[in-house]
Amino acid sequence: MTESNERNANNANKLIVNCLPLTDEERQAFVSAAGDVPQEFVGNPMERGTMGWHANVPSELKERATAVIGNIDPAECAQYPNLKWLQTWSAGVDRYVAPGVLPELTHVTNASGAYGQTVSEHLFAMMWALMRNLPMYARQQGEHRWHDLGRALSPEGATVLVVGTGDIGSHFAGLCKAVGAHTVGVRRNPAKSADGIDEMHGFDELDALLPTADVIALVVPAAPDTFHLIDGRRLTLMKSTAILLNAGRGTAVDPIALTRALSEDQLHGAGLDVTEPEPLPKDSPLWDEPHCLITPHVAGGNHLEVTERRIVAIALENVRRYAAGEALTNVRR
Amino acid sequence: MTESNERNANNANKLIVNCLPLTDEERQAFVSAAGDVPQEFVGNPMERGTMGWHANVPSELKERATAVIGNIDPAECAQYPNLKWLQTWSAGVDRYVAPGVLPELTHVTNASGAYGQTVSEHLFAMMWALMRNLPMYARQQGEHRWHDLGRALSPEGATVLVVGTGDIGSHFAGLCKAVGAHTVGVRRNPAKSADGIDEMHGFDELDALLPTADVIALVVPAAPDTFHLIDGRRLTLMKSTAILLNAGRGTAVDPIALTRALSEDQLHGAGLDVTEPEPLPKDSPLWDEPHCLITPHVAGGNHLEVTERRIVAIALENVRRYAAGEALTNVRR
Repeated sequence: MTESNERNANNANKLIVNCLPLTDEERQAFVSAAGDVPQEFVGNPMERGTMGWHANVPSELKERATAVIGNIDPAECAQYPNLKWLQTWSAGVDRYVAPGVLPELTHVTNASGAYGQTVSEHLFAMMWALMRNLPMYARQQGEHRWHDLGRALSPEGATVLVVGTGDIGSHFAGLCKAVGAHTVGVRRNPAKSADGIDEMHGFDELDALLPTADVIALVVPAAPDTFHLIDGRRLTLMKSTAILLNAGRGTAVDPIALTRALSEDQLHGAGLDVTEPEPLPKDSPLWDEPHCLITPHVAGGNHLEVTERRIVAIALENVRRYAAGEALTNVRR
Repeated sequence: MTESNERNANNANKLIVNCLPLTDEERQAFVSAAGDVPQEFVGNPMERGTMGWHANVPSELKERATAVIGNIDPAECAQYPNLKWLQTWSAGVDRYVAPGVLPELTHVTNASGAYGQTVSEHLFAMMWALMRNLPMYARQQGEHRWHDLGRALSPEGATVLVVGTGDIGSHFAGLCKAVGAHTVGVRRNPAKSADGIDEMHGFDELDALLPTADVIALVVPAAPDTFHLIDGRRLTLMKSTAILLNAGRGTAVDPIALTRALSEDQLHGAGLDVTEPEPLPKDSPLWDEPHCLITPHVAGGNHLEVTERRIVAIALENVRRYAAGEALTNVRR
């Protein structure tokens, strides 16, 4: 057999189960990209534009699938005996690469890159809202109250500290630079630069950088060494005019210490899209902190239409590669 | 007499009454700038950093003042028989150039240019907040409610229509361009370009432009032809995803038509820093519109520290010119 014939024979033994909610046009593009690899479309097009996409795979396909596009239930991964490749529509794949969930040799690729814009824009919107006291004005609006709350802040000439400078942190820094801020990054390997970051430092310099920052944006992943990265001690290092933002993992901030710092005016405000735990409990005192803006983990997901298109584009490219026998992109394992 | 001696003699007959809340250093700069022109400092340094500056001039000085720096009570202008020049700390001078308030020959200069950044940044913050549904999340926060409100919007690739392209409109357009928007301006004389504006049009093209805009920002002054510029008919021309912003004059938007349009989801949201009338009456239905964000005319004023410094710089330059017998800047009359 020639190499091409061999691939064709192999391809006929493959089966892609595609759970994406696709438009007709996109579906046609996936058919072309898969070439001679069989592909079953089980996505619900009605979920397009909604915040929750579901991967519902019929039992019969679970057994035959060699590739799945979609965030299947990790608890059901054992029902896919032939799975060689999982393409998620999320950026996080923690639940799939955890020990025992999928066989060691199953490739896991994610949709990293699709979420940088939406998460960073949400961070940016929270920053501006806090600078202009908009959450407090919204609260006054509920009381039909017309009352000037005084001084506002500006990012022009401000120092923005971005902790975690991957796709999201880099994009956020770029937005801040575009409106006149100086951007400082903190990452594990400070020798590695990132778009949008004026100067890069290591985590060992975090304490020295905090007192210089007007805005501190956290976009670190959940990890043992990011647990309560911002604790009571580090909150005291911040300027009284500083704004703290978190759109990474809720566990990066000690919620009790933050509540105390806000109530004692140790900082200007906090914008949290992620909390510890989630959802934030009804009785958390953070809800009532006037200088705290809380959004229910909505920075990412499919909140921007462009994110959906980028997820589809990443999956499409990997289907093409899968069929052509090329190395996949966005490989997490 | 030489020209210089003549000026010195004239200068001795002048009296500048300076109502600015100055730092010691700034006061010294004004003393130097005035040269041989007598100057009385009546400002209250404690008002620095507050939102309300007051021009309290002792009666004795009112009679002798040839120049005043500060927004004196227009009703008291008749008490300044020798006033030849008024430098306001506001951008608007409507109340001083109105017929009968000041003699025709009294020069009026304003602080235009000091407010572009603060007003445009407030507009920008309102735009981002509405795009990410932050006013609604702030309201949910009051109920300790963790609930995803769905789709968000982005200025990237959006068309931003700026109606009125002076200092504020131009600065706002620049911010929008910096984050990826296409900016379209509308001004009386479209042949005149403005920084930050990609394409300029006249008011006669407004109706044709409204259906193309994702964001419509109003920064027009109060004038007969801007009264209810955005009325019920023009609101129907907007996209259902459009965001309307107003930081010019409240009268530019028909509040009854806007309430109806918002309640019927004719547009995504509105951000109003100015209303008709002001303060917005307690019983206005706009207060309770979920997609309306209302701030109590706080975009301008001294809400940013940099604005105070710019007002002082404009006044200082004019004092220098006044003493040197040069033409003043920022002349409104």
